[in-house]
Amino acid sequence: MVGSARKPLRMARPGLVPVGLLHSSLRDRKDAPNFYTEGAPDAILEIYPAFRRALYRIRVGDELIVITWLHRANRSLLRTHPESDMTRPLLGVFLTRSPDRPNPLGLHRCRVKEVTSTGLRIGPIEAIDGTPVVDIKPVVDEADDS
Amino acid sequence: MVGSARKPLRMARPGLVPVGLLHSSLRDRKDAPNFYTEGAPDAILEIYPAFRRALYRIRVGDELIVITWLHRANRSLLRTHPESDMTRPLLGVFLTRSPDRPNPLGLHRCRVKEVTSTGLRIGPIEAIDGTPVVDIKPVVDEADDS
Repeated sequence: MVGSARKPLRMARPGLVPVGLLHSSLRDRKDAPNFYTEGAPDAILEIYPAFRRALYRIRVGDELIVITWLHRANRSLLRTHPESDMTRPLLGVFLTRSPDRPNPLGLHRCRVKEVTSTGLRIGPIEAIDGTPVVDIKPVVDEADDS
Repeated sequence: MVGSARKPLRMARPGLVPVGLLHSSLRDRKDAPNFYTEGAPDAILEIYPAFRRALYRIRVGDELIVITWLHRANRSLLRTHPESDMTRPLLGVFLTRSPDRPNPLGLHRCRVKEVTSTGLRIGPIEAIDGTPVVDIKPVVDEADDS
């Protein structure tokens, strides 16, 4: 472990940049289901022109993990009752999927419904309108890991 | 979609902060397997003191998705041959798990092997020594989504 203590400094300005933006009929956190299995809609994923080449060979039906930046989150919360259900035990936020966490990254497993000139139609996805997207990855069945 | 075009600006300085650091026997990208199913070792996940409360109630055996910032990545690459295998077709990086991508976030599904005073021992995980960790989430079976 010698020497590695300095390495986080290299990340002091990691410069996370939005590669796109979600356009959804879900307008606010209170409207959003807690999880996409709970009746979430499709959404338009607009990819900014500089990043569209990174979609090369994408096809309808592909299964993706869209990584969002949950821009309305409370980043100071470290413990919470899952899904705001006060009858459930308090947990560290790293044991929950709450958007409220130190780095409010969201993982959204969904499918490509349409490939357009400016991005994708995807779904189902529970993120709200205007949510920035920072990465897209394929689901890897080998790992059962999305 | 009216009005949402300005929202990415709110993310101009999203301020991704490291919550911890991986200590691994894998010292370099060339030593790392392409995927954790390919013989990756366990690693020590040191969580910085300010964030340890977010591990509250974590237990040995819990299955996690650790999200890393792959600090050695080439962020300008938009298309690549998966796993650097030139016989495989060129793909947009959003269709690959390559660390080389606009925002080099890594998703690592692994298990808690030990809970220590400063963090966790986890594995198997293919990330290299010194990799910053930015988030931890539970695997949610309901979604089959890690």
